[in-house]
Amino acid sequence: MNARTEWIVRMAELEIDPARIEAYTALLAEEVETSVAKEPGVLMLHAVSVNGNPERIRILEVYASQQDYEAHLQSPHFLKYKTLTGGMVKSLDLVEVDPIVMCAK
Amino acid sequence: MNARTEWIVRMAELEIDPARIEAYTALLAEEVETSVAKEPGVLMLHAVSVNGNPERIRILEVYASQQDYEAHLQSPHFLKYKTLTGGMVKSLDLVEVDPIVMCAK
Repeated sequence: MNARTEWIVRMAELEIDPARIEAYTALLAEEVETSVAKEPGVLMLHAVSVNGNPERIRILEVYASQQDYEAHLQSPHFLKYKTLTGGMVKSLDLVEVDPIVMCAK
Repeated sequence: MNARTEWIVRMAELEIDPARIEAYTALLAEEVETSVAKEPGVLMLHAVSVNGNPERIRILEVYASQQDYEAHLQSPHFLKYKTLTGGMVKSLDLVEVDPIVMCAK
């Protein structure tokens, strides 16, 4: 997959309430899997947590276009995730990034 | 691609000499493309730069196992990259991470 100029790429950095990590990651996994399966414009969502700090989560997000990103924000599975996880997220920082090279098997 | 427990996943955070960004990204792109094409155990390498701060680079790296990661460090293309970019990298921080969910088209 060669990075294209119209792609929207960013990295979300979240801090989760330590008491709610298990519930949060279950909702996140469901939202990620549904988005990539159902939305043609959601190209990848890779979520990781920092080793030894499971409350610190980073998500690399790639959308095919601005229009696809905006459609994603209105999708029922994203709205469900946002609503149900709202009280679990202590902070959310969205880092806009530019792809240099993105390669995967 | 479902994340597996034997995977080695991490995020490299680099700061590049601003005068050498173009040369650095060309060498990085070559190394990433060669690694994913030639090494069965290099599953993905996604490199991005922070918007407005092209000297700040992050790379999400996924290897199939510890053995694959160690083999990658000894590969001729990685050694070439390390040697030629050594003087361009002002700082390198390796953040060990655990996959939560990794989905891509």
